[in-house]
Amino acid sequence: MKPSVRPFLEATEKFRAGADTPRKFLDRCLETLDLWEPKIAAFVTLNLDGARAAADRSSERWAAGKPLSPIDGMPVGIKDIIETADMPTEMGSPLMKGWTSRKDSASVAALRAAGAIILGKTTTTEFAMSHPFHSTRNPLDLARTPGGSSSGSAAAVAAGIVTAALGTQVIGSGLRPASYCGAFGYKPSVHGINRTGSHDPQSQSCTAIIAATLADTWQVACEIVKRAGGDPGYPGIAGPDRLPAAKKPARLAFVETAGWPTATEEARRALGAAMEKIKAAGVEVIDRRSHASIDAVEADIADAMAFSLKFSDWEMRWFMHSLAERGIEQMSQSSRDRFKIAGTMTIEDYRTALIEREEIRADYNALASTCDGCITLTASGAAPVGITSTGNPAFAVPASLWGTPALSLPVLQAEGLPLGLQFIGYADRDAEAFAVSAWLYDLLAK
Amino acid sequence: MKPSVRPFLEATEKFRAGADTPRKFLDRCLETLDLWEPKIAAFVTLNLDGARAAADRSSERWAAGKPLSPIDGMPVGIKDIIETADMPTEMGSPLMKGWTSRKDSASVAALRAAGAIILGKTTTTEFAMSHPFHSTRNPLDLARTPGGSSSGSAAAVAAGIVTAALGTQVIGSGLRPASYCGAFGYKPSVHGINRTGSHDPQSQSCTAIIAATLADTWQVACEIVKRAGGDPGYPGIAGPDRLPAAKKPARLAFVETAGWPTATEEARRALGAAMEKIKAAGVEVIDRRSHASIDAVEADIADAMAFSLKFSDWEMRWFMHSLAERGIEQMSQSSRDRFKIAGTMTIEDYRTALIEREEIRADYNALASTCDGCITLTASGAAPVGITSTGNPAFAVPASLWGTPALSLPVLQAEGLPLGLQFIGYADRDAEAFAVSAWLYDLLAK
Repeated sequence: MKPSVRPFLEATEKFRAGADTPRKFLDRCLETLDLWEPKIAAFVTLNLDGARAAADRSSERWAAGKPLSPIDGMPVGIKDIIETADMPTEMGSPLMKGWTSRKDSASVAALRAAGAIILGKTTTTEFAMSHPFHSTRNPLDLARTPGGSSSGSAAAVAAGIVTAALGTQVIGSGLRPASYCGAFGYKPSVHGINRTGSHDPQSQSCTAIIAATLADTWQVACEIVKRAGGDPGYPGIAGPDRLPAAKKPARLAFVETAGWPTATEEARRALGAAMEKIKAAGVEVIDRRSHASIDAVEADIADAMAFSLKFSDWEMRWFMHSLAERGIEQMSQSSRDRFKIAGTMTIEDYRTALIEREEIRADYNALASTCDGCITLTASGAAPVGITSTGNPAFAVPASLWGTPALSLPVLQAEGLPLGLQFIGYADRDAEAFAVSAWLYDLLAK
Repeated sequence: MKPSVRPFLEATEKFRAGADTPRKFLDRCLETLDLWEPKIAAFVTLNLDGARAAADRSSERWAAGKPLSPIDGMPVGIKDIIETADMPTEMGSPLMKGWTSRKDSASVAALRAAGAIILGKTTTTEFAMSHPFHSTRNPLDLARTPGGSSSGSAAAVAAGIVTAALGTQVIGSGLRPASYCGAFGYKPSVHGINRTGSHDPQSQSCTAIIAATLADTWQVACEIVKRAGGDPGYPGIAGPDRLPAAKKPARLAFVETAGWPTATEEARRALGAAMEKIKAAGVEVIDRRSHASIDAVEADIADAMAFSLKFSDWEMRWFMHSLAERGIEQMSQSSRDRFKIAGTMTIEDYRTALIEREEIRADYNALASTCDGCITLTASGAAPVGITSTGNPAFAVPASLWGTPALSLPVLQAEGLPLGLQFIGYADRDAEAFAVSAWLYDLLAK
């Protein structure tokens, strides 16, 4: 049986009409869970009783015509790096097995207040970094990884167990799995969604959303931010109460990123065909060959991965150091390696990197006067075979480094599997990024 | 017996010479602990075995001439809002009783790496906000509060149980207790010391340091930041490896703040006498009557307390909401009240407040071309009698709102008890604030 995503917003019309209820919606999710979870292992912990009780309360609210929000009753998964009061937060590490926070993260508390149903905690690679201690599989091909680090979130959404799931992205942890699993992925402007209670303190990191439809994606972001804002001290993403209307861009830039040489021939052709369609629709597509400003931005991100790791290494080093003291043998080799590299850094190295990053961000955001955003692949190709690696993040890292909003749209294919087209917008202009993405999706999903 | 603070840096010369050791230093601290802790209840948890073992290792390093840093062997207390791998972090709330993080905060991990000895967790008011569930007393007068929210940190330093202690300050939680307890207090530029693993996510909050001497204060800050930096994405406070040399300012501004009408006559006279000394030393002292720019800044902070609470309310509301669901009856009435107010805020209110704060900060920092910093009282007078309230933070809140470095210098007196003179510097110029403070202390402590 082929898995399929489970849109929610469109189902709420039936809730309103009394033809369906959030409890029945959840029950269908739970049937899917029974079917798929044994195969894909997307969850670390489930709270089935809590979910059923929450769905019943939601059903009552819809029946009374008083939903708490448009996502009242939406089943949601939470990446296991984000705190939940009712379930442990194990961070993908044996060192955090059974650990509880006793409270919800700001994002989870806001979701609950909006009526969303927190079904369970989804698998993450170790500390939302690279190593998968889990064995989560891609529902579209069980021999393949769902990607990472938000592995379980993408797999659970792709299987239709939940409509949406929270992830995080500091390098490429949100969009890559969305691409591999054929879901929508959204990484907001940095600081755009409140991370309090999420264990990704890195300065580039963001709470990411993986969901069944673009409208569901926006709505989840919108309802969280309306209640919990952005990171403390930041205004949070702003925009309309519902998915921004599709907006045709005048001009887009194709960015190769350091990912292009790693892309499969088929992936390149798929993006090429999409770009032809975009041009045929009357949108100019520029690139590094036609515009020096694009070439300069490409040069800035030639080493985006190694450069981004500098921030992550420095910012996680005491976190890792403290855990290593408790049991370095329970840390993956890749964590130990990163931890060793981090130990050689000085604060001067970090300060220099911060200044350089500001310059790179300024270069990118200056493109706003040249084009309406950038497009590229989300990943080098279809999800790789095997589950010991979660794939190459090279295409996703630039938006993380730039701190810009980025979306992965499930409109391409490779090896008969999904592949995302990535749209990258400008910092703190997330609603515009959704508007252009909506236009692109309408054009390319046909 | 009168308590006295326990300077560390000056003792290290004897460590080097072999005339004293960190273990002996700690043993003296533990004698003081035995004597004072039953009276003042400054600690929530102690790790005596761990402290002794760490002191022995430190003694070996000093004997070998290889200390890890100038604070190798310094006994330190950690406010119980900051995570420690070896002790629970209970946040001053019955709801967090026995809760463990399984890791150190960035600041604690850095202190350990510098060789500091983490003796125990010091009491905090509930969630580092206003209500004291604890019953910590001021060692200088057991009938009085040590202040708060960093209550135990200030009391433990004043009693000489530790040389220094970490606190936090989002309103006036670091400097006020330092003032009441006759210790040095330092609140860095906002984001200046890494708060990862400290449960004060508010955008105005800072890790504060309370210590026996100005040199000890700077050194603790310096050693943390050298290893763990500032908040993720920020450069952290910068400056020389040892206490900046005293620097005579050309011109200082006296700021009344909203605290002045609440100050006792004696406190006002004490500050007045200090200002006369400063003027007699050849420093011009300006104020709101002589300079319109100072008057404008005073107007900005007329309502600093209520305005600061807007940020704290919004930024803590999901944290509080989530805990309230677990047991609102275990929260103080003041927390419930704040939580109720927070519930009426919208993200638009918060966004408006953020913009206004930026303007207020810009007004203040523009004073840098007019004067070398501001002086005022740290508190309205001596520590108030009683332990059910931790005193009035009105004098401390402006520097929190401005995001500037501020120091409390134990050079004034009221009711025969200590009172701090506060020096407020400019954002991200913490070393300069210490240099001027060193000059002021040399002048006024005579």
